[in-house]
Amino acid sequence: MVATLAGQQPVGDTADVGGERIEAEVVVVGAGLAGLSAARELKKRGVDVVVVEARDRVGGRTLNEPIGNGEIVELGGQWVGPTQDHALALIAELGLETFPTWNTGRNIFERNGKVRAYEGTIPKANPVSLAEVGVALKRLNGMAAKVDVECPWAQTELARWDAETFATWMRRNTKTATARDLLRLAIEAVWAAEPEDVSLLHALFYIRSAGSLELLLDTEGGAQEERVIGGTWLISDRMAAELGDAVHLGFPVRRIRWQQMPGEAGERPVEIGPHPVAVEADGLTVSARAAVVALPPAVAGRLEYDPIMPAVRDGLTQRMVQGTVVKCHAVYDEPFWRSEGLSGQATSADGPVSVTFDNSPPGGSPGVLLAFLEGNAARRATDLPPEDRRRIVLDCLTRLFGPKAAKPERFVDKTWATDEFARGCYGGYLPTGAWLMYGEALRAPVGPIHWAGTETATGWAGYMDGAISSGIRAAREITAGT
Amino acid sequence: MVATLAGQQPVGDTADVGGERIEAEVVVVGAGLAGLSAARELKKRGVDVVVVEARDRVGGRTLNEPIGNGEIVELGGQWVGPTQDHALALIAELGLETFPTWNTGRNIFERNGKVRAYEGTIPKANPVSLAEVGVALKRLNGMAAKVDVECPWAQTELARWDAETFATWMRRNTKTATARDLLRLAIEAVWAAEPEDVSLLHALFYIRSAGSLELLLDTEGGAQEERVIGGTWLISDRMAAELGDAVHLGFPVRRIRWQQMPGEAGERPVEIGPHPVAVEADGLTVSARAAVVALPPAVAGRLEYDPIMPAVRDGLTQRMVQGTVVKCHAVYDEPFWRSEGLSGQATSADGPVSVTFDNSPPGGSPGVLLAFLEGNAARRATDLPPEDRRRIVLDCLTRLFGPKAAKPERFVDKTWATDEFARGCYGGYLPTGAWLMYGEALRAPVGPIHWAGTETATGWAGYMDGAISSGIRAAREITAGT
Repeated sequence: MVATLAGQQPVGDTADVGGERIEAEVVVVGAGLAGLSAARELKKRGVDVVVVEARDRVGGRTLNEPIGNGEIVELGGQWVGPTQDHALALIAELGLETFPTWNTGRNIFERNGKVRAYEGTIPKANPVSLAEVGVALKRLNGMAAKVDVECPWAQTELARWDAETFATWMRRNTKTATARDLLRLAIEAVWAAEPEDVSLLHALFYIRSAGSLELLLDTEGGAQEERVIGGTWLISDRMAAELGDAVHLGFPVRRIRWQQMPGEAGERPVEIGPHPVAVEADGLTVSARAAVVALPPAVAGRLEYDPIMPAVRDGLTQRMVQGTVVKCHAVYDEPFWRSEGLSGQATSADGPVSVTFDNSPPGGSPGVLLAFLEGNAARRATDLPPEDRRRIVLDCLTRLFGPKAAKPERFVDKTWATDEFARGCYGGYLPTGAWLMYGEALRAPVGPIHWAGTETATGWAGYMDGAISSGIRAAREITAGT
Repeated sequence: MVATLAGQQPVGDTADVGGERIEAEVVVVGAGLAGLSAARELKKRGVDVVVVEARDRVGGRTLNEPIGNGEIVELGGQWVGPTQDHALALIAELGLETFPTWNTGRNIFERNGKVRAYEGTIPKANPVSLAEVGVALKRLNGMAAKVDVECPWAQTELARWDAETFATWMRRNTKTATARDLLRLAIEAVWAAEPEDVSLLHALFYIRSAGSLELLLDTEGGAQEERVIGGTWLISDRMAAELGDAVHLGFPVRRIRWQQMPGEAGERPVEIGPHPVAVEADGLTVSARAAVVALPPAVAGRLEYDPIMPAVRDGLTQRMVQGTVVKCHAVYDEPFWRSEGLSGQATSADGPVSVTFDNSPPGGSPGVLLAFLEGNAARRATDLPPEDRRRIVLDCLTRLFGPKAAKPERFVDKTWATDEFARGCYGGYLPTGAWLMYGEALRAPVGPIHWAGTETATGWAGYMDGAISSGIRAAREITAGT
C-alpha cells in the first residue's frame, strides 16, 4: 500500500459527518467469516485494524438460534468437508470440533406425487434417466476442468459457455424429464437459484473452484460431510473475541470516501497519506490507509462510493445476484425417522421443499429436520405470512416423512432474501454475459479498497472455506508491499 | 388510498433526522420525465405534491449540453417517433416543436475493415445474410406478438423464452457470421447490451411494447424519426417550471420509511393516517400519504426501505441491470458529410462505435456527429481516461467518414454507467429467469409506495414515451380511490 496523493487532502480528515471518529491502519467492513478472517490475519501481521459491522452480531451468513436445553440450530452456513482446508484449519485453531452429518439409513426421493426410499446415493428412478444424469455430471466436470479459477474473464475461448444458461445446456444434454428434474434439484441445492438464472460458465467456475460436482453435492466425502459442535457461528464469535474492542457492532456503513492512487495508472507509487479512505457508518467514521469490504457483492454495490466505482465494478455489483433460500428447522422430541431406518435426507422434485437433512445436535436429541426452500420456491415462500410458510413446509415434510412430521415442538426458519445485510443466500451468482466482461472486478482492488467475501474466492467460492481464504488473501494484498 | 394503521404511529411523525421537514399529500422521488409527469398529473387532479430530486437539475436521463452560439447537444434520450403518443402530446402541450432527424444521403456499414456506403435502409452485405436477418426479424416480431405486455409474468407458457439468452436464439436461427453481426448491432442499438446479456423474453416484451422491431430500429417511420427543437431536456424543464417550488433539487434520497397497509392483505381498507410514508434525503424529509418512486429499478433498489421490500421487489431490483452506453458528440464547423452525399448514419461491426447519426441542430450548423458506444464497448470505454476515449471514438469516426472527422472543434461525451443516479442507460433490462418470477414487482405498489419510470411502462418501455405514461399511470393509481 503506502502511497499518497500530492495535492489532495486525505479524505478521512475532511469528512463532515456526526458520530464517533476513529483512525486505524486498516478498516474492515463486515464481521462475517471473510471480514473477521481478514482482520485476524492483519492483526497477526501487526497491523492496527478496526472492524465495522452493520448488525448487532458477528457471523454474517452464519447464525445460531437457540432451541432450548442449550441446543441450537444453524440458520446459515453449517457444513464443512474434505479439501476445505482453510475452514478446517481455522476450526481447529479456534479449539472447535466437528462431528459427522447424520448419514445413516435410507434416503427419500419424491417426484410426481410418489415418495420412494432408497439405499446409497442414487435415487430410485428409471435407469435411462440416471444414466443421462451420470453422463451430464461427467461432461460438466470435464468442462469445469477447463476453467482457470484465477481469471475466467481472460478465457475468451469460454465465451459460448457464458452466452447460455444452465437451462439451455441441460435441455440439449438430456432427453428425459426425470434427468432434468434431478439436474434442476442439483442446481437449486448448490446455488439456491434455477437453471434458468445461472450462466453455464458460472456453474462451471463454481464446480471447478470446489473440485467437482460430486464434492459439491455429496454428504460423505463431500461439502456436507461434517458439522461444527455448537454451531459454525462460534467460528466468528471466537475470532471476534480475539479481536476484542476492534470490532464495532451495530454500525451500518453507508458511504466510503476514497482517493485514487496514482500508482495504479502505471505511475510511480507515491507515499500514501494517513487517510486515503474513510468508512462512514451511522454514528461512526473510521479513517484508514486501506479498507477491506467483506460484503456480498450485491450488498457492497448498495453502499455509496465517493467517487463512484469504475463501470466494471459497479456493473459487476449490478449483475451479481444473491441466491434465494429459506432455511427451515422442524424440531421434534426425537429423530423419529432414524428408528424407521431413514437418514432424514430427502429430495423432492415436487417441492416446495427441495432438500432435507437430519440436523439433530451431536447427541441426537432433540430430533431436527432441516428443510431448504431454494430458488423460485424460496422467493414465493419468503413473501408469505410466517404461518403459511410453516404450513407449506410441514405439509411437504409430512409427505416425505409421514404424519409424525406434521407436529413439531418448534419451527424455526430464516428468510435470507429479506435480510437487508445479506439480500439472499447462499451466495452471489452471475447471470449470462457477466463473467467475461465484469468478472475481473470481483477482487481487483480499487484505490485503497480491497474486496473479500466468499464470492471473491478461487477455492470453494460460495462456501465458508472461500470466505475465510478470501479474508486472508485481502489481508495479504494489503500487507504485501510493507 | 386513504387508510391508516390502527395502533401504528405514522412513520412521518416519528423519524428523527436532521434538515428541513415538509408534509405533502404525495411525494415523488426523481424529477426525470416519469417523476415530473406523475407530479404534473397529480397537480392537475388537485393533489398537493412535492418532488425530491438528487441531482441539481431535472431531466433524469435527458440532458442538454451547450456547445456555443446558443446551440446544444443532447447527452441523453433525444428521439421521438410515430405511436409515441404520450411524448408527442406532452411536447405539444408544453409548446415545444419537433424537427425531422437528418436522414438524407447514403448510409455507411463497416465490417471486417471494409467501409461501404449504401442507399436506403439495407446495408451492403451478401444476400444470404440479409435474407437470414429478414427471416429472424419476422420470427421475432411473430413471437413478440404473443407477449402480453400487461403481465408477461403470468404467461408461464413463455417460460422457455425466459430460459435462454438472445445469443442462443440467434445462434440457432442464423447460419452466417454477417447475419449474427447485424443482429448483434440491433441488440446493442436497442438495449445498450449484448445478445448474451438479455433474456429472449425481455427482448420480445420490449419489441411488443414498442410495436415491432422495425419501429425500434428505423429512423423515418420509427423511434428515431424526430427530434425536439432546443433539446428534449426542455420537456422536463417546462414541467418543472409549472410545478414551481414543489420541486426540490439537490436532495439525494437515502431512505424511505413506510407502513404496511392492511387493505392489501385482503382486509377491509382502513383510513390512512396523514403520513404512512416518509422520504428521507440528505437535509430534507418529506412525509406524505403516498410516494411515487420514479427511478431506474437498479437505483430504486439502492435506497434503504424501512421495513425492507418484499423478496419479489428486492429480487427484481437485484436482477434488473442498466444498459451501458457512452454517448459522444463530435462538433465540426459544418456537417461536411452532407456535401459528400452521406447521411451521417453509420453502423460498424468492428467498433468501438456501433452507430452514428447526424445530430446537427435544425439549422444545420455546426455539424454534429453523434456516436454511440454500447454494451461491452461502452463498459470498456467508460473506464478509460477521457482523452483515450476521445481518441478511440475519433479513430473510428475517421475510418467511417474520412480524415475530416479526425479534428472536431469540440468533443463532448457522457458515460452514463458512472452517473450514480442513473447507473447506466438507455434503461434497465432483465437477464434470463427473471421476468416470470420477478416481473410482477415492476409496478405493483408496495403499501403506500408506487413505482414509475420507463421500465415500468407497457407501451414504449425504455423510451421517453414510456417514462411519461408511467408517471401518469402512477398518479392515476394513487388518485383512483379518492
